[in-house]
Amino acid sequence: MMVQGIGASAGVAIGKAFVLPNWEWDLPETGIDVVDLASEFERLYEGIRTSKSEIEFIKNEFKEIVGPEESSIFDAHLAILDDPVFMNEIQGVIERQYKAAEVAVKEAIDHFVTMFDLLDDEYMKERAMDIKDVGNRLLKHLLGAPEVTLPADTQPYILVVKELSPSQLAHLNPSHVLGIVTMLGGQTSHSAIMARALGIPLVAGLDNKLNSPIQTGDLIVMDGGLGTIHLNPEADIIEKFSSIRAKQQEKIEQLELLASVEAVTKDGTELTLLANISSTKEMETVLKYGAAGVGLFRTEFVYMDRTSFPSEDEQFEVYKQVAQQMGDKPTVIRTLDIGGDKQLDYFPMSEEDNPVLGYRAIRISLDRRELFKTQLSAILRASAFGNVKIMYPMISSIEEVRQANDILREAKLELEARGEPFRSDIPVGIMIEIPAAVMIADLLAEECDFFSIGTNDLVQYVLAVDRMNEQIAHMYHPFHPAVLRMLKMIVEAAQKAGIPVSVCGEMAADERSIPLWLEFGVHDLSMSIQSLLRVKHRVLHTTAADAKYVAQRCMNMRTNAETEEFLSHFNESNMISHLE
Amino acid sequence: MMVQGIGASAGVAIGKAFVLPNWEWDLPETGIDVVDLASEFERLYEGIRTSKSEIEFIKNEFKEIVGPEESSIFDAHLAILDDPVFMNEIQGVIERQYKAAEVAVKEAIDHFVTMFDLLDDEYMKERAMDIKDVGNRLLKHLLGAPEVTLPADTQPYILVVKELSPSQLAHLNPSHVLGIVTMLGGQTSHSAIMARALGIPLVAGLDNKLNSPIQTGDLIVMDGGLGTIHLNPEADIIEKFSSIRAKQQEKIEQLELLASVEAVTKDGTELTLLANISSTKEMETVLKYGAAGVGLFRTEFVYMDRTSFPSEDEQFEVYKQVAQQMGDKPTVIRTLDIGGDKQLDYFPMSEEDNPVLGYRAIRISLDRRELFKTQLSAILRASAFGNVKIMYPMISSIEEVRQANDILREAKLELEARGEPFRSDIPVGIMIEIPAAVMIADLLAEECDFFSIGTNDLVQYVLAVDRMNEQIAHMYHPFHPAVLRMLKMIVEAAQKAGIPVSVCGEMAADERSIPLWLEFGVHDLSMSIQSLLRVKHRVLHTTAADAKYVAQRCMNMRTNAETEEFLSHFNESNMISHLE
Repeated sequence: MMVQGIGASAGVAIGKAFVLPNWEWDLPETGIDVVDLASEFERLYEGIRTSKSEIEFIKNEFKEIVGPEESSIFDAHLAILDDPVFMNEIQGVIERQYKAAEVAVKEAIDHFVTMFDLLDDEYMKERAMDIKDVGNRLLKHLLGAPEVTLPADTQPYILVVKELSPSQLAHLNPSHVLGIVTMLGGQTSHSAIMARALGIPLVAGLDNKLNSPIQTGDLIVMDGGLGTIHLNPEADIIEKFSSIRAKQQEKIEQLELLASVEAVTKDGTELTLLANISSTKEMETVLKYGAAGVGLFRTEFVYMDRTSFPSEDEQFEVYKQVAQQMGDKPTVIRTLDIGGDKQLDYFPMSEEDNPVLGYRAIRISLDRRELFKTQLSAILRASAFGNVKIMYPMISSIEEVRQANDILREAKLELEARGEPFRSDIPVGIMIEIPAAVMIADLLAEECDFFSIGTNDLVQYVLAVDRMNEQIAHMYHPFHPAVLRMLKMIVEAAQKAGIPVSVCGEMAADERSIPLWLEFGVHDLSMSIQSLLRVKHRVLHTTAADAKYVAQRCMNMRTNAETEEFLSHFNESNMISHLE
Repeated sequence: MMVQGIGASAGVAIGKAFVLPNWEWDLPETGIDVVDLASEFERLYEGIRTSKSEIEFIKNEFKEIVGPEESSIFDAHLAILDDPVFMNEIQGVIERQYKAAEVAVKEAIDHFVTMFDLLDDEYMKERAMDIKDVGNRLLKHLLGAPEVTLPADTQPYILVVKELSPSQLAHLNPSHVLGIVTMLGGQTSHSAIMARALGIPLVAGLDNKLNSPIQTGDLIVMDGGLGTIHLNPEADIIEKFSSIRAKQQEKIEQLELLASVEAVTKDGTELTLLANISSTKEMETVLKYGAAGVGLFRTEFVYMDRTSFPSEDEQFEVYKQVAQQMGDKPTVIRTLDIGGDKQLDYFPMSEEDNPVLGYRAIRISLDRRELFKTQLSAILRASAFGNVKIMYPMISSIEEVRQANDILREAKLELEARGEPFRSDIPVGIMIEIPAAVMIADLLAEECDFFSIGTNDLVQYVLAVDRMNEQIAHMYHPFHPAVLRMLKMIVEAAQKAGIPVSVCGEMAADERSIPLWLEFGVHDLSMSIQSLLRVKHRVLHTTAADAKYVAQRCMNMRTNAETEEFLSHFNESNMISHLE
């Protein structure tokens, strides 16, 4: 039987079903008595505290696997436990009805889930799912119930579940789960985002489409790209999808062969593909996939999961390790970029209405000069062990560059006095990620040694769209004509001043953008290491003529939609013609 | 005795002191017993509800007087009453120590105020002040204490107080208060911002500077610009400041004479000075001060202080009234710009991490087509009664303009079918306030009839600075070279396409900017009606040669600091040379 669902994470999987019961906790039938209100509140707060630290733990675990952006889903969960509306609902039931904390939590979950579901709005349904997830976790702690675990000792399976919460997904062992099938959910659910980040195929939204429920042990053939599942299919179906899966696998293996190949276009232009890293743990893959250097070392991780600021020596050790591993290849170390959605436990910051437009990155560094100098000193010392460059984030004026350089000068003088070796002419670059920096790129180019374009933040500011806001994320358009024009302005300013310019935002990992960069004259692209070989494959099949044609077409388009459609079409047909 | 304090709101005042006791509530010495926890919580919540509706009331009252921006200070106060940290502290004391709600609130206030004061940070001190203000209000309700009132039956006085909370200031009757002197506080306190909005002179920070405390009845001569006070001064001091005050008063009266004068430069270029309004209540002043039209009618107020969306008829009546009052003069009606920091009680929106980059303005209108069509229909019908134009806020792409125009077309067809009269060729313009719109201004100019530059939001996005965030508000720089370049780009695109361009952000009210607009070729400036005559005065003393010189210098400057210094200096010397 073939069933059409929603393709939520691409990939083909073939395996036996494992049907997971719903992660819902039933209240004991005997009822629960409230002893006294004060101790009932105490139990509730204890449960909240435990739930929070559990979510924090999952979030950090998950961050290591898929990066900070996807793991920030759990911030939404933490926020629910701080949400006065949700908490007032729970507290109200306890204190007005003298009901136990478990009952109050259960009633609050049901209340909000029903309410949100009624609104019949994708976004609100997703919020209902989050409340259910968090509420069930809290309930689990209040009831002292054990965690639902997945079999780890069987063959890898296809997980079948009514709905999958981000918490559950975070507990999965990807090596045991071939694919996921859910009855509810869709493409934009938190779980779908996470499944894509983990590379697990996911077909969602099968509710009401199955004649009979799937049983543990059923054979499933699923295609997360097409959104189809075949339940206990005939041999020919199995064969067909086995061969598709094999081809997909082969493609991955072919890509891995490209690790030692230079990133040169068909007609001989060499590009430099570098890696964005957040942690030294990624260095193994960086070396394995043959990155031409580290184009962006986000130093935030050095400051996280700690109780105080790291010392100069502690930081130096980390930076040195990366510099040494890269050898002659460049290691661009970006100074601390906290604030916005990235917080440190030991550096409390005031609540901000719009943190993305707030006190963050270089603004904090220039305010907290000693912290900044400590980091600069550590980076300078690491420069004695490799090809290290310094990069300042969130620059919006030439005064900021000058102020940062003043502190760098102080750090150099102090290191000299201490007799520490460092590269005195260490190159100093800036991120171009604020529209103001684009508009004065010509002036900024005279104040620094290189530019790196941070497309993620730049697109947000140019379009006034917070891409983490699900209500408007569909308006986040890297190929908006305004963005393309700004990119061209930046590159022209850099070229005129004779300084190098690279790209380190996610646009660099979108292979459709390669012809544009080539024609603009940007030859250094930095991206997540997972994207590097795919992009290299694209580079190998590009020519200057292609690039010129694509750029000319794109720069004359009036909307993001036209541009994206053209780019996708060109990319596909171009790559297909090269595949044979 | 002359004492130097901090000049927090300019203006000279001479009068008798009225010393206000601190607005702090003492707990009854007999102690308060807790009857039972549930009823104690009930009392607390009741107090919170009453405090909230009281703050809402003050906020709305105040908004009428000084506009929505300054009154948003009270949103910070409302947020405190929703703050889980503050509330948990209070609830914790009640439930763990069995103390009465009053005692718990008092302890929580003391706890946070002490903590924030310890940090020795201006921003945190201001937060402490907010908590004190809100906490005292809550305490007042719990104790059933009467409001501290100010004498209204005496001569106008100079208010002397240890520190002044925004709540207290909102209760003042400006006609009874000549000036304010505070022991604590500074230039950036909420109260200082409010005093400036109300036009009441304020000298702050006198603590430890007085040999003996000021007594009610003391004669005070204060200069809120210089930050000085003279206590019981000699006759010559009184005379000197009386004459300064008289000159200031005379200047205001001279300005009022300009109401009927055309806004023409010394060498004959005519500018059109229009008014930004938020409410029909402002129309009296708009007419009195001789505005050349309404350049920006913020329609949000029509939607506020209600329990449901206003009907087409209700909106029509309001728009018609303004259109009729302006007659042939233009009335530019901006469609609903909610979201961001503006919320409607009956239109619940999800909590957003960065509402300024979120679901707001035209994004909501295009999503809720029926609401939008109702508003457009009301505006169209008003166009039969005056010179009405429509303006869309927050445009970032040409698709948005086209989609909005599609809905406008539907509205026109429906009105036609209903036989309602309207101006079928009503001009449709867009706000240029998102950097993307600047970059594609040439494309957008082909899709609409006029541009209006919203400098307030534009500067925020270009610099990535939320100007309501006190930690970085000092980085909000309208004269940043990046902003000036963008302004020039917008004007050039409009001129090339042959459509008019106006400015309706606060920059238009900054008289230093007049030469720039003139040289750029922007002749329509819209501003708060309070600024209009001051700006007109500046226009009357400007020449094309001045404008050319100023613009040339400014466009070659590299930093905001240089530009601002030059502009301030030029403005002052230029105006002084014209004063004689």
